[in-house]
Amino acid sequence: MTLPEPAFLAVDWGTTNRRVYAIDATGAVVARERDDRGVLGVAAGAFPAEVEAIRARMGPLPMLCAGMVGSTRGWVEVPYLPCPAGFGDLAAGLHRIDARTAIVPGLSSTTARGGDVMRGEEVQLLGSVVAGMAPADALLCQPGTHCKWARLAGGSVTGFRTTMTGELFALLKRHSLLSDFLSAEPVDGAAFREGVAAAQDATLLGDLFGVRANILLGHRARADAASYVSGLLIGSDVREQAIAPGEHVHVLADPGLGALYGVALSLLGASPVLLDSAAAFVAGMTHIWRHDDAFES
Amino acid sequence: MTLPEPAFLAVDWGTTNRRVYAIDATGAVVARERDDRGVLGVAAGAFPAEVEAIRARMGPLPMLCAGMVGSTRGWVEVPYLPCPAGFGDLAAGLHRIDARTAIVPGLSSTTARGGDVMRGEEVQLLGSVVAGMAPADALLCQPGTHCKWARLAGGSVTGFRTTMTGELFALLKRHSLLSDFLSAEPVDGAAFREGVAAAQDATLLGDLFGVRANILLGHRARADAASYVSGLLIGSDVREQAIAPGEHVHVLADPGLGALYGVALSLLGASPVLLDSAAAFVAGMTHIWRHDDAFES
Repeated sequence: MTLPEPAFLAVDWGTTNRRVYAIDATGAVVARERDDRGVLGVAAGAFPAEVEAIRARMGPLPMLCAGMVGSTRGWVEVPYLPCPAGFGDLAAGLHRIDARTAIVPGLSSTTARGGDVMRGEEVQLLGSVVAGMAPADALLCQPGTHCKWARLAGGSVTGFRTTMTGELFALLKRHSLLSDFLSAEPVDGAAFREGVAAAQDATLLGDLFGVRANILLGHRARADAASYVSGLLIGSDVREQAIAPGEHVHVLADPGLGALYGVALSLLGASPVLLDSAAAFVAGMTHIWRHDDAFES
Repeated sequence: MTLPEPAFLAVDWGTTNRRVYAIDATGAVVARERDDRGVLGVAAGAFPAEVEAIRARMGPLPMLCAGMVGSTRGWVEVPYLPCPAGFGDLAAGLHRIDARTAIVPGLSSTTARGGDVMRGEEVQLLGSVVAGMAPADALLCQPGTHCKWARLAGGSVTGFRTTMTGELFALLKRHSLLSDFLSAEPVDGAAFREGVAAAQDATLLGDLFGVRANILLGHRARADAASYVSGLLIGSDVREQAIAPGEHVHVLADPGLGALYGVALSLLGASPVLLDSAAAFVAGMTHIWRHDDAFES
């Protein structure tokens, strides 16, 4: 009996968190770790030492990195690839640090409203297709601090739009007049759904102040405020996308947040499909690694 | 020749700022001061000493206070009066601290979306009518950290709605991903007007993230970001009110912020009328003082 042998390391290197996967030749994860050594937690110049430490723990293997590690605040600034972009473009645009280490480029999108950018989400998006989790033509949603809404056609990302939904919730929770009311964890229920419904009137600035007023006047329970505000913001986010009735939306997220988006999408007439974002990332990185000849292994 | 003789003191005692006016029998201001001793700057229990200090500086006169001084965080919690409410209601609801000192009550409003509250703005609203600055039937706007939109009919406040516009701008400026871009003072110009226009699509969550993306991609000048975001927020605020084309909106504000609301209102088809909010406050307090028999002078 032999233990599975890792073939390469895939790093999802974000702003505040970092996830490392050791992946075997079949694309299966044989080891993983998650920590808070995102790019803001790593001093400029300290990235080579970080990578050496990862290899010391996880194995002396080829390494593919994606995410904010390729930004101005990261290790090396890797230019955005314009949409439409597929796996071939990502592989061609790999930034090679050395013979065994590379960074996947982010994408840019130009819409009627100007430009948009992503770093890291493109691997999940394309990975969900090669993993058979999403069709080659799809609308995908990646909730989080900054929520990405992306269109895929023929297995390429054709365009996307980012919303500030999660960051706005965090700002309101930490620094606003509503801070005292938002300590609870948002959950699905009557208050969340009322928020989603209210958001369809597109009166967010008034509805946010109304949270405090309605608590002061005894019209809303203080304990429900976080769920209601979450519903207002997620409901606004979904409304902004003008999704066609019945359209499938593939949601790549952690289960908790993904479930809330799923509820909002269903309430607003779309057909959500919840996907495992970590599995999509692993599938995407494995696809890039397999189809790149330049890596020494 | 005699100097004008002050007859009473009017205090606009807000959360972070305090304005004190010494007013003569004709309603003219004979002295004024402004400082940062809002209710958050005064310890619980220290209000009597504060009032004594004001009288020591400004004169041993009757004193009318309005604003957050009447809230749970203030001197005494004074119950909200429900709309519709006019001067007679404010006078009847005065909370008398002693024979020479009283606090004006705030108002509450119940709308289709639940409740809303104000403290201090009611004096400006009703004062603008007795001063002849606004008609007895009017839509009024009081921009600020929390912007009030109030309807008056027959000289009473019949209802109002508060928006979180100014606070949201402050949160974005101080604590968000956009902080680095928002240090400039917002001014009217192409960027502000572009923000107002964009806000009519009701896609605020996406437009906010787009500010950063468009700067990164070279589509927008960094120096214009604050004006554009101000336009997005003020444009959203005005849009949320669904103002009838050509309707007069009386704006009670400091000149800078009032001018930006005036531009947005004009661009969106309303007819703004800019009013002096301090003059409206003084007129309102004078009216209450004149018609109240309970004060010893």
